[in-house]
Amino acid sequence: MSLPTHVRLVEVGPRDGLQNEAQPISVADKVRLVDRLTEAGLGYIEVGSFVSPKWVPQMAGSAEVFAGIQRKTGVTYAALAPNLRGFEDAVAAGVKEVAVFAAASEAFSQRNINCSIRESLERFTPIMEAARQHGVTVRGYVSCVLGCPYEGTVAAEQVAVVARELNAMGCYEVSLGDTIGTGTPGATRRMFEVVSASVPREKLAGHFHDTYGQAMANVYASLLEGIQVFDSSIAGLGGCPYAKGASGNVATEDVLYMLDGLGISTGVDLDRLLLAGQEICGVLGRATGSRVARARQAG
Amino acid sequence: MSLPTHVRLVEVGPRDGLQNEAQPISVADKVRLVDRLTEAGLGYIEVGSFVSPKWVPQMAGSAEVFAGIQRKTGVTYAALAPNLRGFEDAVAAGVKEVAVFAAASEAFSQRNINCSIRESLERFTPIMEAARQHGVTVRGYVSCVLGCPYEGTVAAEQVAVVARELNAMGCYEVSLGDTIGTGTPGATRRMFEVVSASVPREKLAGHFHDTYGQAMANVYASLLEGIQVFDSSIAGLGGCPYAKGASGNVATEDVLYMLDGLGISTGVDLDRLLLAGQEICGVLGRATGSRVARARQAG
Repeated sequence: MSLPTHVRLVEVGPRDGLQNEAQPISVADKVRLVDRLTEAGLGYIEVGSFVSPKWVPQMAGSAEVFAGIQRKTGVTYAALAPNLRGFEDAVAAGVKEVAVFAAASEAFSQRNINCSIRESLERFTPIMEAARQHGVTVRGYVSCVLGCPYEGTVAAEQVAVVARELNAMGCYEVSLGDTIGTGTPGATRRMFEVVSASVPREKLAGHFHDTYGQAMANVYASLLEGIQVFDSSIAGLGGCPYAKGASGNVATEDVLYMLDGLGISTGVDLDRLLLAGQEICGVLGRATGSRVARARQAG
Repeated sequence: MSLPTHVRLVEVGPRDGLQNEAQPISVADKVRLVDRLTEAGLGYIEVGSFVSPKWVPQMAGSAEVFAGIQRKTGVTYAALAPNLRGFEDAVAAGVKEVAVFAAASEAFSQRNINCSIRESLERFTPIMEAARQHGVTVRGYVSCVLGCPYEGTVAAEQVAVVARELNAMGCYEVSLGDTIGTGTPGATRRMFEVVSASVPREKLAGHFHDTYGQAMANVYASLLEGIQVFDSSIAGLGGCPYAKGASGNVATEDVLYMLDGLGISTGVDLDRLLLAGQEICGVLGRATGSRVARARQAG
Protein backbone atom coordinates (compact mmCIF):
# COMPACT_ATOMS: atom_id res chain seq x y z
CA MET A 1 0.00 0.00 0.00
CA SER A 2 1.38 3.42 -0.89
CA LEU A 3 1.36 6.37 1.51
CA PRO A 4 -1.58 8.78 1.47
CA THR A 5 -0.99 12.07 -0.36
CA HIS A 6 -2.99 14.08 2.16
CA VAL A 7 -3.39 13.75 5.92
CA ARG A 8 -5.85 15.51 8.20
CA LEU A 9 -4.38 16.51 11.55
CA VAL A 10 -6.81 16.61 14.47
CA GLU A 11 -5.42 19.04 17.02
CA VAL A 12 -6.35 17.86 20.51
CA GLY A 13 -4.10 20.18 22.50
CA PRO A 14 -6.74 22.66 23.76
CA ARG A 15 -8.85 19.76 25.12
CA ASP A 16 -6.99 16.48 25.60
CA GLY A 17 -3.76 18.41 26.14
CA LEU A 18 -4.79 21.17 28.54
CA GLN A 19 -7.15 18.85 30.40
CA ASN A 20 -4.17 16.85 31.50
CA GLU A 21 -1.91 19.74 32.43
CA ALA A 22 -1.65 20.43 36.15
CA GLN A 23 -2.87 24.01 36.18
CA PRO A 24 -5.99 25.49 34.58
CA ILE A 25 -5.48 28.48 32.27
CA SER A 26 -7.74 31.42 31.54
CA VAL A 27 -10.46 31.54 28.89
CA ALA A 28 -8.53 34.32 27.14
CA ASP A 29 -5.42 32.17 26.89
CA LYS A 30 -7.43 29.25 25.54
CA VAL A 31 -9.09 31.47 22.93
CA ARG A 32 -5.69 32.78 21.90
CA LEU A 33 -4.35 29.24 21.56
CA VAL A 34 -7.26 28.10 19.39
CA ASP A 35 -6.93 31.22 17.20
CA ARG A 36 -3.21 30.58 16.76
CA LEU A 37 -3.94 26.98 15.77
CA THR A 38 -6.50 28.19 13.26
CA GLU A 39 -3.94 30.60 11.83
CA ALA A 40 -1.46 27.72 11.48
CA GLY A 41 -3.88 26.07 9.06
CA LEU A 42 -5.27 23.23 11.13
CA GLY A 43 -8.60 21.99 9.81
CA TYR A 44 -9.80 20.37 13.02
CA ILE A 45 -9.37 21.68 16.56
CA GLU A 46 -10.79 20.05 19.66
CA VAL A 47 -11.55 23.20 21.62
CA GLY A 48 -12.98 22.03 24.93
CA SER A 49 -15.12 19.65 26.90
CA PHE A 50 -18.62 19.99 28.30
CA VAL A 51 -18.23 18.15 31.53
CA SER A 52 -18.70 19.08 35.18
CA PRO A 53 -15.90 21.45 36.29
CA LYS A 54 -16.00 19.49 39.54
CA TRP A 55 -14.41 16.57 37.68
CA VAL A 56 -12.24 18.42 35.19
CA PRO A 57 -11.53 21.97 36.42
CA GLN A 58 -9.19 22.58 33.47
CA MET A 59 -12.17 22.46 31.11
CA ALA A 60 -14.27 25.06 32.91
CA GLY A 61 -15.35 27.89 30.62
CA SER A 62 -15.53 25.86 27.41
CA ALA A 63 -18.73 27.73 26.40
CA GLU A 64 -16.89 31.05 26.82
CA VAL A 65 -13.99 29.72 24.77
CA PHE A 66 -16.36 28.76 21.93
CA ALA A 67 -17.92 32.23 22.15
CA GLY A 68 -14.51 33.92 21.98
CA ILE A 69 -12.71 32.14 19.16
CA GLN A 70 -12.45 33.41 15.59
CA ARG A 71 -14.08 30.68 13.53
CA LYS A 72 -12.65 30.13 10.09
CA THR A 73 -14.82 28.64 7.37
CA GLY A 74 -14.04 25.01 6.72
CA VAL A 75 -12.42 24.43 10.11
CA THR A 76 -14.10 22.03 12.56
CA TYR A 77 -14.20 23.22 16.17
CA ALA A 78 -15.17 20.23 18.29
CA ALA A 79 -15.97 19.51 21.92
CA LEU A 80 -16.01 16.41 24.05
CA ALA A 81 -19.51 15.58 25.30
CA PRO A 82 -19.47 12.65 27.71
CA ASN A 83 -23.25 12.62 28.29
CA LEU A 84 -26.53 14.18 27.15
CA ARG A 85 -26.24 17.07 29.58
CA GLY A 86 -22.80 17.87 28.16
CA PHE A 87 -24.13 17.52 24.64
CA GLU A 88 -26.93 20.01 25.31
CA ASP A 89 -24.49 22.49 26.83
CA ALA A 90 -22.27 22.07 23.77
CA VAL A 91 -25.13 22.72 21.36
CA ALA A 92 -26.15 25.77 23.39
CA ALA A 93 -22.57 27.03 22.94
CA GLY A 94 -22.91 26.67 19.15
CA VAL A 95 -20.87 23.50 18.83
CA LYS A 96 -21.38 21.66 15.52
CA GLU A 97 -19.23 18.60 16.22
CA VAL A 98 -18.85 16.59 19.39
CA ALA A 99 -16.72 13.66 20.40
CA VAL A 100 -17.70 10.70 22.54
CA PHE A 101 -15.30 8.45 24.36
CA ALA A 102 -15.26 4.67 24.95
CA ALA A 103 -12.58 2.20 25.97
CA ALA A 104 -11.46 -1.06 24.39
CA SER A 105 -10.60 -2.49 27.79
CA GLU A 106 -13.29 -3.43 30.30
CA ALA A 107 -11.14 -2.63 33.32
CA PHE A 108 -10.16 0.79 31.95
CA SER A 109 -13.79 1.57 31.17
CA GLN A 110 -14.81 0.71 34.73
CA ARG A 111 -12.05 2.75 36.34
CA ASN A 112 -12.02 5.70 33.94
CA ILE A 113 -15.68 6.07 32.91
CA ASN A 114 -17.21 4.19 35.90
CA CYS A 115 -19.25 1.81 33.75
CA SER A 116 -18.85 -1.18 31.47
CA ILE A 117 -18.02 -0.74 27.79
CA ARG A 118 -21.60 -1.82 26.99
CA GLU A 119 -23.08 0.78 29.36
CA SER A 120 -20.84 3.52 27.98
CA LEU A 121 -22.03 2.75 24.45
CA GLU A 122 -25.66 2.75 25.61
CA ARG A 123 -25.17 6.21 27.09
CA PHE A 124 -24.24 7.46 23.63
CA THR A 125 -27.60 6.45 22.09
CA PRO A 126 -29.50 9.56 23.27
CA ILE A 127 -26.50 11.74 22.30
CA MET A 128 -26.48 10.27 18.78
CA GLU A 129 -30.22 10.89 18.46
CA ALA A 130 -29.97 14.44 19.71
CA ALA A 131 -27.00 15.01 17.40
CA ARG A 132 -29.02 13.92 14.39
CA GLN A 133 -31.83 16.28 15.38
CA HIS A 134 -29.41 19.21 15.74
CA GLY A 135 -27.33 18.40 12.66
CA VAL A 136 -24.28 17.87 14.86
CA THR A 137 -21.63 15.42 13.69
CA VAL A 138 -20.10 12.95 16.13
CA ARG A 139 -16.59 11.54 16.30
CA GLY A 140 -15.81 8.50 18.45
CA TYR A 141 -12.73 7.77 20.51
CA VAL A 142 -11.63 4.33 21.60
CA SER A 143 -8.92 4.27 24.25
CA CYS A 144 -6.46 1.52 25.25
CA VAL A 145 -6.39 0.04 21.74
CA LEU A 146 -2.83 -1.26 22.11
CA GLY A 147 -2.68 -1.96 25.82
CA CYS A 148 -4.40 -1.28 29.11
CA PRO A 149 -2.76 -0.23 32.38
CA TYR A 150 -4.92 -2.77 34.25
CA GLU A 151 -5.44 -5.62 31.78
CA GLY A 152 -2.19 -5.49 29.80
CA THR A 153 -2.82 -6.85 26.33
CA VAL A 154 -5.98 -5.74 24.50
CA ALA A 155 -7.15 -7.91 21.60
CA ALA A 156 -7.50 -6.12 18.26
CA GLU A 157 -10.80 -7.99 17.87
CA GLN A 158 -12.11 -6.26 20.99
CA VAL A 159 -11.07 -2.88 19.52
CA ALA A 160 -12.90 -3.82 16.33
CA VAL A 161 -16.10 -4.57 18.24
CA VAL A 162 -16.14 -1.18 19.95
CA ALA A 163 -15.14 0.69 16.79
CA ARG A 164 -17.85 -1.07 14.79
CA GLU A 165 -20.47 -0.18 17.41
CA LEU A 166 -19.47 3.48 17.39
CA ASN A 167 -19.52 3.53 13.62
CA ALA A 168 -22.91 1.79 13.51
CA MET A 169 -24.31 4.32 16.00
CA GLY A 170 -23.37 7.09 13.60
CA CYS A 171 -19.84 8.20 14.43
CA TYR A 172 -18.48 9.29 11.04
CA GLU A 173 -14.93 8.66 12.25
CA VAL A 174 -13.42 6.55 15.02
CA SER A 175 -10.11 7.54 16.56
CA LEU A 176 -8.12 4.62 17.98
CA GLY A 177 -5.98 5.67 20.91
CA ASP A 178 -2.87 4.06 22.34
CA THR A 179 -3.62 5.65 25.70
CA ILE A 180 -0.64 4.25 27.58
CA GLY A 181 1.79 4.37 24.65
CA THR A 182 2.91 0.75 24.84
CA GLY A 183 2.11 -0.06 21.22
CA THR A 184 4.85 -0.83 18.71
CA PRO A 185 4.61 -0.59 14.90
CA GLY A 186 3.80 -4.24 14.21
CA ALA A 187 0.97 -4.28 16.74
CA THR A 188 -0.29 -0.98 15.34
CA ARG A 189 -0.44 -2.38 11.82
CA ARG A 190 -2.15 -5.59 12.92
CA MET A 191 -4.68 -3.58 14.93
CA PHE A 192 -5.60 -1.43 11.92
CA GLU A 193 -5.72 -4.54 9.73
CA VAL A 194 -8.19 -6.24 12.07
CA VAL A 195 -10.33 -3.16 12.78
CA SER A 196 -10.53 -2.16 9.12
CA ALA A 197 -12.40 -5.41 8.46
CA SER A 198 -15.22 -3.87 10.55
CA VAL A 199 -14.81 -0.14 9.83
CA PRO A 200 -13.33 1.16 6.56
CA ARG A 201 -9.82 2.61 6.89
CA GLU A 202 -10.93 6.03 5.69
CA LYS A 203 -13.16 6.25 8.76
CA LEU A 204 -10.34 5.46 11.19
CA ALA A 205 -7.84 7.78 12.86
CA GLY A 206 -4.68 7.11 14.88
CA HIS A 207 -4.09 8.67 18.29
CA PHE A 208 -0.66 7.93 19.75
CA HIS A 209 1.09 8.70 22.99
CA ASP A 210 4.86 8.88 23.16
CA THR A 211 5.20 7.42 26.66
CA TYR A 212 7.58 4.70 25.47
CA GLY A 213 9.00 6.64 22.52
CA GLN A 214 6.96 4.69 19.97
CA ALA A 215 4.46 7.32 18.78
CA MET A 216 6.29 8.53 15.69
CA ALA A 217 7.09 5.00 14.50
CA ASN A 218 3.43 4.12 15.07
CA VAL A 219 2.27 7.10 13.02
CA TYR A 220 4.53 5.98 10.19
CA ALA A 221 3.28 2.39 10.54
CA SER A 222 -0.31 3.68 10.39
CA LEU A 223 0.41 5.68 7.23
CA LEU A 224 1.67 2.45 5.67
CA GLU A 225 -1.72 0.94 6.59
CA GLY A 226 -3.51 3.71 4.73
CA ILE A 227 -4.59 5.73 7.77
CA GLN A 228 -5.04 9.39 6.82
CA VAL A 229 -6.16 11.09 10.02
CA PHE A 230 -4.01 11.57 13.12
CA ASP A 231 -4.71 13.16 16.48
CA SER A 232 -1.84 15.13 17.95
CA SER A 233 -1.28 17.80 20.54
CA ILE A 234 0.52 21.12 20.14
CA ALA A 235 3.83 21.06 22.07
CA GLY A 236 2.93 17.51 23.16
CA LEU A 237 0.61 18.91 25.83
CA GLY A 238 -1.23 16.53 28.10
CA GLY A 239 -1.36 12.81 28.59
CA CYS A 240 -3.69 10.77 30.69
CA PRO A 241 -3.73 11.22 34.45
CA TYR A 242 -5.66 7.98 34.94
CA ALA A 243 -3.14 5.79 33.19
CA LYS A 244 -0.07 4.71 35.11
CA GLY A 245 3.08 6.14 33.56
CA ALA A 246 1.19 7.79 30.73
CA SER A 247 2.65 11.00 29.43
CA GLY A 248 2.37 13.22 26.47
CA ASN A 249 0.35 12.99 23.33
CA VAL A 250 2.61 12.96 20.31
CA ALA A 251 3.49 16.57 19.43
CA THR A 252 1.75 18.05 16.40
CA GLU A 253 4.97 19.79 15.35
CA ASP A 254 6.88 16.49 15.21
CA VAL A 255 4.14 14.70 13.26
CA LEU A 256 3.90 17.61 10.82
CA TYR A 257 7.69 17.61 10.34
CA MET A 258 7.51 13.95 9.34
CA LEU A 259 4.55 14.45 7.03
CA ASP A 260 6.27 17.42 5.38
CA GLY A 261 9.37 15.26 4.90
CA LEU A 262 7.26 12.50 3.38
CA GLY A 263 5.71 14.97 0.95
CA ILE A 264 2.24 14.45 2.45
CA SER A 265 0.13 17.61 2.39
CA THR A 266 -1.74 18.80 5.49
CA GLY A 267 -2.40 22.49 4.89
CA VAL A 268 -0.59 23.27 8.14
CA ASP A 269 2.32 25.72 8.34
CA LEU A 270 5.15 24.53 10.61
CA ASP A 271 6.45 27.97 11.51
CA ARG A 272 3.05 29.22 12.63
CA LEU A 273 2.47 26.00 14.49
CA LEU A 274 5.76 26.45 16.34
CA LEU A 275 4.65 29.94 17.31
CA ALA A 276 1.40 28.60 18.76
CA GLY A 277 3.34 26.01 20.74
CA GLN A 278 5.85 28.54 22.03
CA GLU A 279 3.07 30.80 23.24
CA ILE A 280 1.08 28.17 25.11
CA CYS A 281 4.25 26.80 26.73
CA GLY A 282 4.97 30.34 27.91
CA VAL A 283 1.50 30.58 29.44
CA LEU A 284 1.89 27.22 31.17
CA GLY A 285 5.48 27.91 32.16
CA ARG A 286 6.52 24.51 30.89
CA ALA A 287 9.07 23.19 28.41
CA THR A 288 7.76 22.07 25.05
CA GLY A 289 7.26 18.36 24.45
CA SER A 290 8.02 18.82 20.76
CA ARG A 291 11.53 17.91 19.70
CA VAL A 292 11.21 19.96 16.53
CA ALA A 293 10.40 22.98 18.70
CA ARG A 294 13.37 22.27 20.95
CA ALA A 295 15.73 21.88 18.00
CA ARG A 296 14.52 25.13 16.45
CA GLN A 297 14.96 26.95 19.77
CA ALA A 298 18.52 25.64 20.07
CA GLY A 299 19.33 26.48 16.45
CA MET B 1 10.46 -6.98 2.18
CA SER B 2 9.75 -8.61 5.53
CA LEU B 3 11.32 -7.46 8.78
CA PRO B 4 14.57 -9.07 9.92
CA THR B 5 14.24 -11.70 12.66
CA HIS B 6 17.42 -10.64 14.41
CA VAL B 7 19.01 -7.22 14.91
CA ARG B 8 22.45 -6.37 16.23
CA LEU B 9 22.53 -3.31 18.48
CA VAL B 10 25.78 -1.33 18.45
CA GLU B 11 25.99 0.50 21.76
CA VAL B 12 27.77 3.81 21.23
CA GLY B 13 27.00 5.40 24.62
CA PRO B 14 30.42 5.02 26.25
CA ARG B 15 32.09 6.70 23.25
CA ASP B 16 29.75 8.75 21.03
CA GLY B 17 27.51 9.38 24.01
CA LEU B 18 29.95 10.35 26.76
CA GLN B 19 32.15 12.23 24.29
CA ASN B 20 29.34 14.69 23.80
CA GLU B 21 28.34 15.07 27.42
CA ALA B 22 29.56 18.26 29.08
CA GLN B 23 31.56 16.75 31.89
CA PRO B 24 34.21 14.01 31.75
CA ILE B 25 33.68 11.03 34.06
CA SER B 26 36.20 8.77 35.78
CA VAL B 27 37.77 5.65 34.28
CA ALA B 28 36.13 3.60 37.05
CA ASP B 29 32.68 4.90 36.10
CA LYS B 30 33.31 4.16 32.42
CA VAL B 31 34.46 0.63 33.22
CA ARG B 32 31.35 0.09 35.32
CA LEU B 33 29.13 1.37 32.49
CA VAL B 34 30.73 -0.96 29.92
CA ASP B 35 30.46 -3.91 32.30
CA ARG B 36 26.77 -3.16 32.90
CA LEU B 37 26.19 -2.99 29.15
CA THR B 38 27.96 -6.33 28.73
CA GLU B 39 25.74 -7.81 31.46
CA ALA B 40 22.66 -6.50 29.60
CA GLY B 41 23.60 -8.75 26.68
CA LEU B 42 24.86 -6.23 24.13
CA GLY B 43 27.10 -7.85 21.53
CA TYR B 44 28.91 -4.69 20.47
CA ILE B 45 30.06 -1.83 22.67
CA GLU B 46 32.02 1.18 21.48
CA VAL B 47 34.16 1.67 24.55
CA GLY B 48 36.30 4.72 23.81
CA SER B 49 38.34 6.77 21.42
CA PHE B 50 42.08 7.03 20.87
CA VAL B 51 42.36 10.70 20.13
CA SER B 52 44.28 13.53 21.73
CA PRO B 53 42.71 14.44 25.12
CA LYS B 54 43.46 18.03 24.12
CA TRP B 55 40.64 17.75 21.56
CA VAL B 56 38.30 15.40 23.37
CA PRO B 57 38.97 15.48 27.13
CA GLN B 58 35.98 13.19 27.76
CA MET B 59 37.83 10.35 26.02
CA ALA B 60 41.00 10.55 28.11
CA GLY B 61 41.89 7.24 29.74
CA SER B 62 40.44 4.99 27.03
CA ALA B 63 43.43 2.63 27.37
CA GLU B 64 42.74 2.32 31.10
CA VAL B 65 39.08 1.65 30.40
CA PHE B 66 40.00 -1.17 28.01
CA ALA B 67 42.35 -2.57 30.66
CA GLY B 68 39.64 -2.44 33.32
CA ILE B 69 36.57 -3.92 31.64
CA GLN B 70 35.42 -7.52 32.00
CA ARG B 71 35.50 -8.84 28.45
CA LYS B 72 32.88 -11.41 27.61
CA THR B 73 33.53 -13.92 24.82
CA GLY B 74 31.70 -13.05 21.63
CA VAL B 75 31.28 -9.38 22.51
CA THR B 76 33.04 -6.77 20.38
CA TYR B 77 34.68 -3.92 22.31
CA ALA B 78 35.53 -1.22 19.79
CA ALA B 79 37.36 2.10 19.77
CA LEU B 80 37.35 5.08 17.47
CA ALA B 81 40.75 5.61 15.83
CA PRO B 82 40.81 8.79 13.77
CA ASN B 83 44.42 8.38 12.62
CA LEU B 84 47.38 5.97 12.61
CA ARG B 85 48.67 7.25 15.92
CA GLY B 86 45.28 6.58 17.47
CA PHE B 87 45.16 3.17 15.84
CA GLU B 88 48.54 2.22 17.30
CA ASP B 89 47.49 3.35 20.75
CA ALA B 90 44.32 1.29 20.38
CA VAL B 91 46.23 -1.83 19.39
CA ALA B 92 48.61 -1.30 22.31
CA ALA B 93 45.52 -1.24 24.56
CA GLY B 94 44.44 -4.62 23.19
CA VAL B 95 41.69 -3.31 20.92
CA LYS B 96 40.55 -5.81 18.26
CA GLU B 97 38.08 -3.58 16.40
CA VAL B 98 38.35 0.08 15.49
CA ALA B 99 36.03 2.55 13.83
CA VAL B 100 36.91 5.26 11.33
CA PHE B 101 34.83 8.30 10.59
CA ALA B 102 34.08 10.14 7.31
CA ALA B 103 31.38 12.59 6.26
CA ALA B 104 29.00 12.53 3.30
CA SER B 105 29.07 16.32 3.16
CA GLU B 106 32.13 18.24 1.99
CA ALA B 107 31.43 21.26 4.20
CA PHE B 108 30.91 19.10 7.29
CA SER B 109 34.12 17.19 6.57
CA GLN B 110 36.06 20.45 6.31
CA ARG B 111 34.65 21.90 9.52
CA ASN B 112 34.53 18.73 11.59
CA ILE B 113 37.58 16.75 10.42
CA ASN B 114 39.51 19.69 8.94
CA CYS B 115 40.01 18.06 5.55
CA SER B 116 38.12 17.13 2.41
CA ILE B 117 36.20 13.85 2.18
CA ARG B 118 38.89 12.59 -0.22
CA GLU B 119 41.70 13.46 2.20
CA SER B 120 39.87 11.85 5.11
CA LEU B 121 39.53 8.63 3.14
CA GLU B 122 43.21 8.74 2.18
CA ARG B 123 44.15 9.01 5.85
CA PHE B 124 42.42 5.69 6.43
CA THR B 125 44.67 3.79 3.98
CA PRO B 126 47.55 3.31 6.42
CA ILE B 127 45.06 2.45 9.19
CA MET B 128 43.45 -0.23 7.00
CA GLU B 129 46.88 -1.68 6.20
CA ALA B 130 47.97 -1.72 9.80
CA ALA B 131 44.62 -3.24 10.78
CA ARG B 132 45.13 -6.11 8.35
CA GLN B 133 48.59 -6.73 9.76
CA HIS B 134 47.29 -6.81 13.33
CA GLY B 135 44.12 -8.77 12.54
CA VAL B 136 42.01 -5.83 13.67
CA THR B 137 38.58 -5.37 12.07
CA VAL B 138 37.46 -1.91 10.97
CA ARG B 139 33.98 -0.40 10.94
CA GLY B 140 33.27 2.79 8.98
CA TYR B 141 31.02 5.70 9.91
CA VAL B 142 29.54 8.14 7.43
CA SER B 143 27.99 11.24 8.96
CA CYS B 144 25.41 13.69 7.58
CA VAL B 145 23.78 11.05 5.40
CA LEU B 146 20.34 12.73 5.53
CA GLY B 147 21.33 16.36 5.87
CA CYS B 148 24.21 18.69 6.69
CA PRO B 149 24.11 21.70 9.03
CA TYR B 150 26.07 23.71 6.43
CA GLU B 151 24.98 22.32 3.07
CA GLY B 152 21.39 21.31 3.83
CA THR B 153 20.42 18.46 1.53
CA VAL B 154 22.91 15.65 0.98
CA ALA B 155 22.44 13.47 -2.09
CA ALA B 156 22.04 9.74 -1.43
CA GLU B 157 24.42 9.19 -4.35
CA GLN B 158 27.10 11.08 -2.45
CA VAL B 159 26.50 8.87 0.60
CA ALA B 160 26.81 5.84 -1.67
CA VAL B 161 30.21 7.02 -3.00
CA VAL B 162 31.66 7.40 0.49
CA ALA B 163 30.12 4.15 1.75
CA ARG B 164 31.46 2.25 -1.28
CA GLU B 165 34.96 3.65 -0.73
CA LEU B 166 34.96 2.64 2.92
CA ASN B 167 33.71 -0.81 2.02
CA ALA B 168 36.29 -1.16 -0.76
CA MET B 169 39.05 -0.15 1.66
CA GLY B 170 38.08 -3.03 3.91
CA CYS B 171 35.43 -1.77 6.34
CA TYR B 172 33.30 -4.86 6.96
CA GLU B 173 30.35 -2.64 7.90
CA VAL B 174 29.43 0.97 7.20
CA SER B 175 27.21 2.86 9.63
CA LEU B 176 25.18 5.64 8.02
CA GLY B 177 24.54 8.49 10.43
CA ASP B 178 21.79 11.11 10.39
CA THR B 179 24.03 13.42 12.40
CA ILE B 180 21.63 16.35 12.62
CA GLY B 181 18.47 14.27 12.84
CA THR B 182 16.59 15.97 10.01
CA GLY B 183 15.88 12.77 8.11
CA THR B 184 12.34 11.44 7.75
CA PRO B 185 11.29 7.85 6.94
CA GLY B 186 10.88 8.30 3.18
CA ALA B 187 14.31 9.88 2.79
CA THR B 188 15.77 7.16 4.99
CA ARG B 189 14.34 4.43 2.79
CA ARG B 190 15.47 6.08 -0.44
CA MET B 191 18.94 6.58 1.00
CA PHE B 192 19.28 2.89 1.90
CA GLU B 193 17.86 1.93 -1.47
CA VAL B 194 20.47 4.01 -3.31
CA VAL B 195 23.41 3.07 -1.08
CA SER B 196 22.58 -0.64 -1.17
CA ALA B 197 23.25 -0.61 -4.91
CA SER B 198 26.90 0.06 -3.95
CA VAL B 199 27.22 -1.78 -0.64
CA PRO B 200 25.06 -4.81 0.25
CA ARG B 201 22.37 -4.13 2.85
CA GLU B 202 23.81 -6.67 5.27
CA LYS B 203 26.95 -4.53 5.46
CA LEU B 204 25.04 -1.35 6.32
CA ALA B 205 23.94 0.00 9.69
CA GLY B 206 21.62 2.85 10.68
CA HIS B 207 22.64 5.55 13.14
CA PHE B 208 19.86 7.98 14.02
CA HIS B 209 19.60 11.11 16.13
CA ASP B 210 16.29 12.14 17.64
CA THR B 211 16.83 15.89 17.29
CA TYR B 212 13.58 16.34 15.35
CA GLY B 213 11.76 13.37 16.87
CA GLN B 214 12.24 11.21 13.78
CA ALA B 215 14.74 8.61 14.99
CA MET B 216 12.31 5.86 15.95
CA ALA B 217 10.30 6.20 12.75
CA ASN B 218 13.59 6.10 10.83
CA VAL B 219 14.67 2.92 12.62
CA TYR B 220 11.36 1.31 11.68
CA ALA B 221 11.73 2.54 8.09
CA SER B 222 15.25 1.06 7.97
CA LEU B 223 14.00 -2.29 9.25
CA LEU B 224 11.52 -2.28 6.38
CA GLU B 225 14.53 -1.78 4.07
CA GLY B 226 16.19 -4.88 5.49
CA ILE B 227 18.71 -3.08 7.71
CA GLN B 228 19.71 -5.32 10.61
CA VAL B 229 22.25 -3.28 12.57
CA PHE B 230 21.52 -0.11 14.52
CA ASP B 231 23.70 2.20 16.55
CA SER B 232 22.11 3.58 19.69
CA SER B 233 23.17 5.14 22.94
CA ILE B 234 22.22 4.10 26.46
CA ALA B 235 19.89 6.70 28.01
CA GLY B 236 20.19 8.68 24.78
CA LEU B 237 23.58 10.02 25.91
CA GLY B 238 25.40 12.44 23.67
CA GLY B 239 24.77 14.15 20.40
CA CYS B 240 27.11 16.14 18.23
CA PRO B 241 28.59 19.39 19.52
CA TYR B 242 29.67 20.45 16.03
CA ALA B 243 26.22 20.24 14.50
CA LYS B 244 23.83 23.13 15.07
CA GLY B 245 20.83 22.01 17.08
CA ALA B 246 21.97 18.42 17.20
CA SER B 247 21.02 16.52 20.31
CA GLY B 248 20.81 13.01 21.51
CA ASN B 249 21.46 9.74 19.84
CA VAL B 250 18.37 7.58 19.84
CA ALA B 251 18.16 5.78 23.19
CA THR B 252 19.06 2.07 23.19
CA GLU B 253 16.21 1.34 25.61
CA ASP B 254 13.62 2.83 23.24
CA VAL B 255 14.97 0.99 20.20
CA LEU B 256 15.07 -2.28 22.14
CA TYR B 257 11.48 -1.75 23.33
CA MET B 258 10.38 -1.43 19.71
CA LEU B 259 12.39 -4.46 18.56
CA ASP B 260 11.00 -6.54 21.45
CA GLY B 261 7.50 -5.44 20.42
CA LEU B 262 8.18 -6.40 16.82
CA GLY B 263 9.36 -9.84 17.93
CA ILE B 264 12.88 -9.18 16.64
CA SER B 265 15.57 -10.85 18.74
CA THR B 266 18.62 -8.91 19.96
CA GLY B 267 19.93 -10.90 22.92
CA VAL B 268 19.62 -7.77 25.05
CA ASP B 269 17.66 -7.69 28.32
CA LEU B 270 15.60 -4.53 28.78
CA ASP B 271 15.59 -4.57 32.59
CA ARG B 272 19.35 -4.85 32.80
CA LEU B 273 19.73 -2.19 30.15
CA LEU B 274 17.50 0.15 32.15
CA LEU B 275 19.71 -0.47 35.18
CA ALA B 276 22.82 0.51 33.18
CA GLY B 277 21.10 3.68 32.02
CA GLN B 278 19.91 4.61 35.49
CA GLU B 279 23.40 4.21 36.88
CA ILE B 280 25.19 6.32 34.26
CA CYS B 281 22.56 9.06 34.53
CA GLY B 282 23.18 9.07 38.27
CA VAL B 283 26.92 9.50 37.67
CA LEU B 284 26.33 12.32 35.20
CA GLY B 285 23.59 13.89 37.30
CA ARG B 286 21.36 14.18 34.27
CA ALA B 287 17.88 13.02 33.34
CA THR B 288 17.61 10.04 31.05
CA GLY B 289 16.96 10.65 27.36
CA SER B 290 15.09 7.34 27.13
CA ARG B 291 11.33 7.58 27.24
CA VAL B 292 11.04 3.92 28.21
CA ALA B 293 13.28 4.64 31.20
CA ARG B 294 11.19 7.68 32.14
CA ALA B 295 7.94 5.73 31.87
CA ARG B 296 9.32 2.91 34.01
CA GLN B 297 10.52 5.39 36.65
CA ALA B 298 7.07 7.01 36.74
CA GLY B 299 5.29 3.65 36.86
